Amino acid sequence: MMMTVTEVAELVEGTVEGDGAGRVSGLAGLREAQPGDLSLLMNRKYAAALAETQAAAVLVRRTWTGQSPCPVIRVADPAAAMTQVALATRPEYPLPPPGVHPSAVLADDVVLADDVTIGPLCVLEAGVQVGPGTVLVASCYLGAGVQVGAQSWLYPHVSIREGCRIGSRTTIHNGTVIGSDGFGYDRQEDGSWAKIPQVGIVEIGDDVEIGANVAVDRARFGRTLIGNGVKLDNLNQIAHNVVIGENTAIAALCGIGGSTVFGRNVQMGGMAGSAGHLTIGDNAIVGGHSTPVKDLPPGSFSMGYVATPHKQWKRIHAAEQHLPELVRKVAELERTIEALKQQGGV
Amino acid sequence: MMMTVTEVAELVEGTVEGDGAGRVSGLAGLREAQPGDLSLLMNRKYAAALAETQAAAVLVRRTWTGQSPCPVIRVADPAAAMTQVALATRPEYPLPPPGVHPSAVLADDVVLADDVTIGPLCVLEAGVQVGPGTVLVASCYLGAGVQVGAQSWLYPHVSIREGCRIGSRTTIHNGTVIGSDGFGYDRQEDGSWAKIPQVGIVEIGDDVEIGANVAVDRARFGRTLIGNGVKLDNLNQIAHNVVIGENTAIAALCGIGGSTVFGRNVQMGGMAGSAGHLTIGDNAIVGGHSTPVKDLPPGSFSMGYVATPHKQWKRIHAAEQHLPELVRKVAELERTIEALKQQGGV
Amino acid sequence: MMMTVTEVAELVEGTVEGDGAGRVSGLAGLREAQPGDLSLLMNRKYAAALAETQAAAVLVRRTWTGQSPCPVIRVADPAAAMTQVALATRPEYPLPPPGVHPSAVLADDVVLADDVTIGPLCVLEAGVQVGPGTVLVASCYLGAGVQVGAQSWLYPHVSIREGCRIGSRTTIHNGTVIGSDGFGYDRQEDGSWAKIPQVGIVEIGDDVEIGANVAVDRARFGRTLIGNGVKLDNLNQIAHNVVIGENTAIAALCGIGGSTVFGRNVQMGGMAGSAGHLTIGDNAIVGGHSTPVKDLPPGSFSMGYVATPHKQWKRIHAAEQHLPELVRKVAELERTIEALKQQGGV
Repeated sequence: MMMTVTEVAELVEGTVEGDGAGRVSGLAGLREAQPGDLSLLMNRKYAAALAETQAAAVLVRRTWTGQSPCPVIRVADPAAAMTQVALATRPEYPLPPPGVHPSAVLADDVVLADDVTIGPLCVLEAGVQVGPGTVLVASCYLGAGVQVGAQSWLYPHVSIREGCRIGSRTTIHNGTVIGSDGFGYDRQEDGSWAKIPQVGIVEIGDDVEIGANVAVDRARFGRTLIGNGVKLDNLNQIAHNVVIGENTAIAALCGIGGSTVFGRNVQMGGMAGSAGHLTIGDNAIVGGHSTPVKDLPPGSFSMGYVATPHKQWKRIHAAEQHLPELVRKVAELERTIEALKQQGGV
Repeated sequence: MMMTVTEVAELVEGTVEGDGAGRVSGLAGLREAQPGDLSLLMNRKYAAALAETQAAAVLVRRTWTGQSPCPVIRVADPAAAMTQVALATRPEYPLPPPGVHPSAVLADDVVLADDVTIGPLCVLEAGVQVGPGTVLVASCYLGAGVQVGAQSWLYPHVSIREGCRIGSRTTIHNGTVIGSDGFGYDRQEDGSWAKIPQVGIVEIGDDVEIGANVAVDRARFGRTLIGNGVKLDNLNQIAHNVVIGENTAIAALCGIGGSTVFGRNVQMGGMAGSAGHLTIGDNAIVGGHSTPVKDLPPGSFSMGYVATPHKQWKRIHAAEQHLPELVRKVAELERTIEALKQQGGV
Repeated sequence: MMMTVTEVAELVEGTVEGDGAGRVSGLAGLREAQPGDLSLLMNRKYAAALAETQAAAVLVRRTWTGQSPCPVIRVADPAAAMTQVALATRPEYPLPPPGVHPSAVLADDVVLADDVTIGPLCVLEAGVQVGPGTVLVASCYLGAGVQVGAQSWLYPHVSIREGCRIGSRTTIHNGTVIGSDGFGYDRQEDGSWAKIPQVGIVEIGDDVEIGANVAVDRARFGRTLIGNGVKLDNLNQIAHNVVIGENTAIAALCGIGGSTVFGRNVQMGGMAGSAGHLTIGDNAIVGGHSTPVKDLPPGSFSMGYVATPHKQWKRIHAAEQHLPELVRKVAELERTIEALKQQGGV
């Protein structure tokens, strides 16, 4: 890209303060911006970074007041404006051409809609069905009987195991595995484990996005369900028979234990882990690195190594910071009382 | 599937209460059951879910007492009965045909037993040996000198790196990596890291099952060992020179630090992480999201952000919930004592 | 391998105590050593393991004093000596032959330096450039416009997504994904999520090593940056627009939230998770399973479920172990004071 500050302002319907003739050749956050980069001020937290930025120009809110070492462009929403510039200036990557690449390996009875893209080195086993407009970029695996809806997009090295169903307009990033066996065994008397057959499937709805290197296990029976509009970040683990309600969003490296049911619009921070067999209510929020071990009510906000209502957790956490002091105080009280008792001749 | 409730009962040797003529066309948990689904009551926790279920029929224990909105089928073990129905009604997925798929890429000196299946787009490097009955479903990679025993099963996108050995009747799910380099570096004076060569291997025993997207690092020297009968869930990280004893089971998203030795029959909950160079005794249990930082004795049950004996952890955790109250109490005691001192003229 | 104890000592310039004629045929840690194995005593923690080892000989420090059940070889650095033996005796794995394997799928305009290795079943999309001496072992995916420098090494099932850049002498282990979309959505009024385009790239420096099944997300705009000399262990999650400074090392299963900037030489223990939008100063250390939620100063050492300065954390953690006792003490104090008040007629 190569634009002047004024040209950027025109694109995003902003107003320039400072030299509009400067040239912008890249995009970066305030702290890592190099000369020539356009940056943005997302919130007050970054005020100090702004003072030291090397950026050529910075997108700020219309209402922003402050000093900038470089020209600013005032806009209604700096983040949205940055995305607009990014979209306008991004390199064009060629789309995979529709059709089946000759290196792909397809069973005889695969059913493909007319304008499907099956990229190089994909494997489609017996009975696979793929809907119109769906793209398998390369090196994907669809097991026997897998169904994928319309306009979905599977990135390289995605595995969808036998019998699983993927909806429409759903995106799955590289390396993700849908339908691996659930982790279920019966302990035998000699200490060994007898496998419990995992004969269900995974069913994933429409408008879902699943990140890279995620694992979603097939159900022990019936279906592991990922509802419409769900967003799962990278490296998540969804165990067998879990149900994730519509529009729930789960950040990276979370683990959801078997048979747990998430309601709609739940939000879960990164590295959180839910025990199995729980019900997490609609609109509940679970903080990062927290562990729900019992049902959480709709709309609740929980936090903590053992997830606790957020307000209570904050009080406990604050008190913990003073725990060494509290121990000292109690020791002192014990000494004082001992003295009082002796003086009082009790 | 399409069975009557009576037919289901006959299959699982159960007795029907209610209308045996109803039709069952699917399997699901109580909460997500749709009309027509067979469900099961696993434990009392689900009593409320039973009251509201839409299931067509529910498998319950012979000794169960309670109300059900639909017919029930009494059996000795509802979970086992559900598995029985699932197995009897599951779709037949065709097995990969034995032999080497023409799209697979094999070095000249690969040694395959007679009835091996090497699926499409697998790569087998020089010196690989594969035992009888073993199946590589598709797109697997076996590095130079890898040995796989008999009747093992590798799902798509599994990588086994150079020199590693996999036993017999062992299953490895999609995307798992066996034998990546251990994380070992020596810090240099300029802050950079000099790589410590990781020249050992991984050796995996018989009857092991490893989930999806797991990483097991090769040893710095000698072997990282996964014993017979071990079960590892998805997204686990096993560092270099770790030893996992027979029949140990580790849930998802756990990390085991370098050179730690797990005994036999250990059980570890999800998202737990063991420090390196520890010894975890036989039959020890480590709770989910816990962190062992010192050796754990055989048969112990540990829990906590820093793993602590479970009983002690429970007491500490319970006390923590009252910590803000404790802080208030101590402040009040201080005030009372101050008053006593003044009144007593101390 | 097959050497005598004396031959091993000659190789590592050590001195034998005990029978130098014994034969060494393998390498292993003290606890898992079988007869015939060479082992090493890394530190005092393993003194008990030494007493019980079955090893044929053990490498010890020159200054070591103690009893050994087998011959010892005194050396300056037992770990370095062990690596020396491992390197001298490891099996030779054939290197992938230079050139493009006929099963690889390359776009017409791919630019390869002369002595590149593109192994079997790799896919290189339009505009890819690969520098001299770089090896793609097998089944790797390079998206449109990807650039890889010189002498880098990509193991099987690595995906590098469109537009991302990898430096020179950089190693990426199996199953790792570079450039998957960042996790960014705007909540809509109906609860659904509108995707924020992720149009930036990932740029990875020189001399980087990235473990297996890692995910590094492409930037929302600009670049997610992994600096020169950075070492990332398996199963890490690096979110969009993160910057990791030179020579920083991050152990397995860590998650770094969006736009967080790590300085140089930072060290992070396993399973730690940083919130987004933080600055972690140069040379900071973050303990395992810890969660930074605010900026950390250069050179700091932090620890804890909510990361706290390590000294403070140790005091708090120690006090927590006595919390149930503290609760009892306070209850007792309350009773004593009540008695004092009554006796004193207050």
